[in-house]
Amino acid sequence: MNTISPEKIIADLGQLVEPGKVRTDEESLATFGKDWTKLYEPKPLAIVFPKTTEQVQAVVRYANEHKIGLVPSGGRTGLSAGAVAANGEVVVSFEYMNQVLEFNASDRTVKCQAGVVTEQLQNFAEEQGLYYPVDFASAGSSQLGGNLSTNAGGIKVIRYGMSRDWVAGLTVVTGKGDILELNKDLEKNNTGYDLRHLFIGAEGTLGFITEATMKLTRKPTNLTALVLGLGDISNTMDVLQSFQQKIDLTAYEFFSHKAMGHVLAHGDVPAPFETEAPFYALLEFESISEQVMDDAMAIFESCVEQGWVLDGVISQSETQLNNLWRLREGISESISVHTPYKNDISVVVSKVPEFLNEIDQVVTEHYPDFEIIWFGHIGDGNLHLNILKPQNLDKESFFAKCAQVNKWVFEIVERHQGSISAEHGVGLTKKEYLGYTRSETEVAYLRAIKHVFDPQNIMNPGKLIDPA
Amino acid sequence: MNTISPEKIIADLGQLVEPGKVRTDEESLATFGKDWTKLYEPKPLAIVFPKTTEQVQAVVRYANEHKIGLVPSGGRTGLSAGAVAANGEVVVSFEYMNQVLEFNASDRTVKCQAGVVTEQLQNFAEEQGLYYPVDFASAGSSQLGGNLSTNAGGIKVIRYGMSRDWVAGLTVVTGKGDILELNKDLEKNNTGYDLRHLFIGAEGTLGFITEATMKLTRKPTNLTALVLGLGDISNTMDVLQSFQQKIDLTAYEFFSHKAMGHVLAHGDVPAPFETEAPFYALLEFESISEQVMDDAMAIFESCVEQGWVLDGVISQSETQLNNLWRLREGISESISVHTPYKNDISVVVSKVPEFLNEIDQVVTEHYPDFEIIWFGHIGDGNLHLNILKPQNLDKESFFAKCAQVNKWVFEIVERHQGSISAEHGVGLTKKEYLGYTRSETEVAYLRAIKHVFDPQNIMNPGKLIDPA
Repeated sequence: MNTISPEKIIADLGQLVEPGKVRTDEESLATFGKDWTKLYEPKPLAIVFPKTTEQVQAVVRYANEHKIGLVPSGGRTGLSAGAVAANGEVVVSFEYMNQVLEFNASDRTVKCQAGVVTEQLQNFAEEQGLYYPVDFASAGSSQLGGNLSTNAGGIKVIRYGMSRDWVAGLTVVTGKGDILELNKDLEKNNTGYDLRHLFIGAEGTLGFITEATMKLTRKPTNLTALVLGLGDISNTMDVLQSFQQKIDLTAYEFFSHKAMGHVLAHGDVPAPFETEAPFYALLEFESISEQVMDDAMAIFESCVEQGWVLDGVISQSETQLNNLWRLREGISESISVHTPYKNDISVVVSKVPEFLNEIDQVVTEHYPDFEIIWFGHIGDGNLHLNILKPQNLDKESFFAKCAQVNKWVFEIVERHQGSISAEHGVGLTKKEYLGYTRSETEVAYLRAIKHVFDPQNIMNPGKLIDPA
Repeated sequence: MNTISPEKIIADLGQLVEPGKVRTDEESLATFGKDWTKLYEPKPLAIVFPKTTEQVQAVVRYANEHKIGLVPSGGRTGLSAGAVAANGEVVVSFEYMNQVLEFNASDRTVKCQAGVVTEQLQNFAEEQGLYYPVDFASAGSSQLGGNLSTNAGGIKVIRYGMSRDWVAGLTVVTGKGDILELNKDLEKNNTGYDLRHLFIGAEGTLGFITEATMKLTRKPTNLTALVLGLGDISNTMDVLQSFQQKIDLTAYEFFSHKAMGHVLAHGDVPAPFETEAPFYALLEFESISEQVMDDAMAIFESCVEQGWVLDGVISQSETQLNNLWRLREGISESISVHTPYKNDISVVVSKVPEFLNEIDQVVTEHYPDFEIIWFGHIGDGNLHLNILKPQNLDKESFFAKCAQVNKWVFEIVERHQGSISAEHGVGLTKKEYLGYTRSETEVAYLRAIKHVFDPQNIMNPGKLIDPA
């Protein structure tokens, strides 16, 4: 890909960032050359750690000159291999661009470098008496730049939207090496195409997000959770509609009985109630007045009368709230010992029951020994499909069978006009399946846009789409 | 621009749409050849009225073949001449694409053709027991396609965001003549660049939005308004911050004493209270419980104690709520007899007081006889600057002086990193000022994106940017 020697490149890069901020030791290459996906062997040429937007720009300009591939690296919690450097690329890590730069109380905005960790931003907001509402399991490691590049959503989307919805302004370095200040933190600005939204969700294929001004909001009051046992997956829709008529939900999650079983087996958290149900819904809302609580109880009772809800429990304290959440949030970790196949897919909310049943059926029909674990953000139509490896099956055979499952799942996604990636991104792992969600004509436009911002294809090469 | 005869073009277009759906009579040309801006003489070649996305596509393909400029026409309420056809273009009117196509109760979405009128959508939502929250003065005429093409905001942005935030999916015909189904109505979908957000706010320069699936939400409960008299414009910030700590405002508007004077002079609506103040704030919130009302009263009292608020009134009924709103919403009409110069600008919220004072000062210094009327969506940093024509000054001289005012205003906008167009768009009237908000480098990217979707420059030519 490049014509000058690796040694020369490494030496040159050293001139563009602060002393010691280019690393080539084995451990750094292994650590910063990959994300949470384990399918690819990391093989970067070097890791650079810029500290400013201008240093990022210098690296991009140099990479353009010598046609060197650059891979962005944030908290490395990605699940689509979007931050894997397996082909001698230079990794640009935001580890040292982790400063909260500026807070404005009237505007309720905070300007951050891209390497600020999600939890760091959440805590900063809390210290100001405010709230950053985007939250998910990897909040302790994931970085803002990565969140924005995959438009991360998580558990509060039904009330607060995606990462996209909290961006007032972005500073980016395009693949051509230009610094752009996008939207200038304005609430209202209608002066031509909103490039901010093009960079959000682009998985680093158009350029680097180096700084972001994020909006904050009022801290929620007295969050209260309900866990309900449902007779059938279709009841998730009945319950959702009943509650939404009166109450603004801050979360609407679901999990199957099997999923909960794995959490309960760990013994750290009690069952919500004795009644067994095939599916459970977790609802959360701000219990800001007795009226809201009365409304919630009345809706609950009417759902029981209708036969949609078999049993239920409501949190009466913060401890109980946290325990109910652990039933949902503990799933991923509790099944991780079973080498799960994972998929992150979505359809419009109303299609979820049919969609889930079809996938259940096709997998069970062909692989009756596979244990399917369902959970996810059902209020957003976003399902996390997990399949556990049977103990007597070796990894290789399991993943070969899962490749087949992938095809069935994506065919069903396509038939229901869904998405092959709800929030994890396309990266390397889903690139070949992109056509199940985006038409060939659409992909041609994506390629043309990529060419506008990154004509030499140096930005995260091989991810998302191949160049024209 | 084209090589075949106008007669042939008109005849050919007649083959692409339903019988009678091409008009060339003087009245139609004059009516559909312009929007609310009166600065340009309409001079279209013909008006076509497609009824389906496929007919729009046929027109675009034909226009590409013969390099004919196309101008989109919605409710024609634009204030930036974005829908003016002054150069023999063919106007594509969405007048007959005004059907609500599909409603989904679980998803709370409604699919509409682009010609659906804002109020029609609001009423449809209400009939379903739901709410479409984007609202503004021209809701009775403006069409959805136009709202999306300027990313219209209006009076509830502080709580509900812009038009952009309510779009689940779009059907568009690109300038090249491709039909794209964008985002498939999904809540979560992270599969490459989100082209939906590129078409929103593009003012019809990339293609036509032909259908949109819009999200709806819960109807607000017991909306209550406060009008407060403020001693100084800077108090708008103090009051905003105090309320936002506890209460989710559904609106935060402001107007000057002079602005209110024009409304009161019409005699249809009473003054809110006797105390005179230079500025007034109008706050609205859902009074969902006694607690919220108690909170609001406590904050109000503390604002009075601090000296920020001189007097205030709270609505106790829907009639009172509507009367308080008329103080704000009646301004535009009440000053229209004075041939006002209008500008729609924004800065980040915290900069509003300084920004407003600077503009006041420069205008007053040079033109002491100009009456400046301030009002707008101050909670979004969006100000509507109006200057009334002195009676003894002829229109021509007035607008010549206003051209000078434009320059001062936009220089101040630039210094405060604001926007020359908050929500009205750039169109023709602000094209030459675009550089005050977008850098030259950014504009070069805008041009390149335009070229991707509309390589022959047939889509709304001359608006927003000139081609490369």
